[in-house]
Amino acid sequence: MKLSARNALKGKIESINKGIVTTTLKVDIGHGIHVTSSITNDAAEDLGLKIGDEVTAIIKSSDVIIGK
Amino acid sequence: MKLSARNALKGKIESINKGIVTTTLKVDIGHGIHVTSSITNDAAEDLGLKIGDEVTAIIKSSDVIIGK
Amino acid sequence: MKLSARNALKGKIESINKGIVTTTLKVDIGHGIHVTSSITNDAAEDLGLKIGDEVTAIIKSSDVIIGK
Amino acid sequence: MKLSARNALKGKIESINKGIVTTTLKVDIGHGIHVTSSITNDAAEDLGLKIGDEVTAIIKSSDVIIGK
Amino acid sequence: MKLSARNALKGKIESINKGIVTTTLKVDIGHGIHVTSSITNDAAEDLGLKIGDEVTAIIKSSDVIIGK
Amino acid sequence: MKLSARNALKGKIESINKGIVTTTLKVDIGHGIHVTSSITNDAAEDLGLKIGDEVTAIIKSSDVIIGK
Repeated sequence: MKLSARNALKGKIESINKGIVTTTLKVDIGHGIHVTSSITNDAAEDLGLKIGDEVTAIIKSSDVIIGK
Repeated sequence: MKLSARNALKGKIESINKGIVTTTLKVDIGHGIHVTSSITNDAAEDLGLKIGDEVTAIIKSSDVIIGK
Repeated sequence: MKLSARNALKGKIESINKGIVTTTLKVDIGHGIHVTSSITNDAAEDLGLKIGDEVTAIIKSSDVIIGK
Repeated sequence: MKLSARNALKGKIESINKGIVTTTLKVDIGHGIHVTSSITNDAAEDLGLKIGDEVTAIIKSSDVIIGK
Repeated sequence: MKLSARNALKGKIESINKGIVTTTLKVDIGHGIHVTSSITNDAAEDLGLKIGDEVTAIIKSSDVIIGK
Repeated sequence: MKLSARNALKGKIESINKGIVTTTLKVDIGHGIHVTSSITNDAAEDLGLKIGDEVTAIIKSSDVIIGK
């Protein structure tokens, strides 16, 4: 399946921080760049996410703020 | 000002596509990685955005979907 | 690819309204229920979206407001 | 009050999962279709949400990704 | 209908800027404070929005970034 | 750094509610108006947020729903 979301950054899960209903993940996309994501625990379990997994961080362009 | 948004990806504006009220931008964050952003024209004008500008793409972690 | 986004509603594109940089789509998910999406024109073109296409409307649970 | 958000899906709360500051809800919108929402506990308490409640899942069209 | 979104700022529409598929609005919430919103034209037409209208700007708390 | 996000509401932190991975904050922007934000605990710690801090609530215009 191809997505309309314009941003798909490939990387590896570097750390996982699990709360009661929310999990935050740090994804290493290489070159010293990291992307942090907050998802539901259900999602984290459903995808069986663990450190080292190859994942894609997907972001809609309307969710990207520009700072200058 | 420091931001709560966990993702701040530095890069250069590669292209600008301006509509009547919305502008889309492609930011080159290096290493062949790009981030696309949709902002209002008011924002694009207020920041005086032009190709080559050094900018930061800011994304809240709750806006990052994980695909695996 | 499996997604962390908890909502994936399957349907058919019923209408497409294209602006200069943004396209809005109405997706019929059956049973008289419709989902409207705003995406970039780049996305609409990249996916080659046209009326009748079978698509999935994907929504992060943190983007769903509850009204009662 | 009428909302600008283009998506308003009516259903019944099927399950509630409460964390320390965030609650996730599963809403059954009929025909085997479910919508999951993450809201603050304050919101869940303020609306007095409980299983079986008739609610509306409200989503802005700019938050809907299309997959094809 | 009561909403889970924690932010509901009341004000009056000060300006409307209409594109082909997207409309941006500036809402004066008093005391020199303004809130800008981007909605679909369909939404703007459906609500019959015009300058001076009393409206509420509704924002999910997960969409609010903190800067310090 | 100047931001493309059109909404930047200045205020003081009135309350902080910390969960395991998510923190919610109530910001008093004056005149009896409050803005609630959900951020990651990492962000709250990184910014060293505490009650009384002067902060800015930043919101992208595409995240603002209009109710009328």
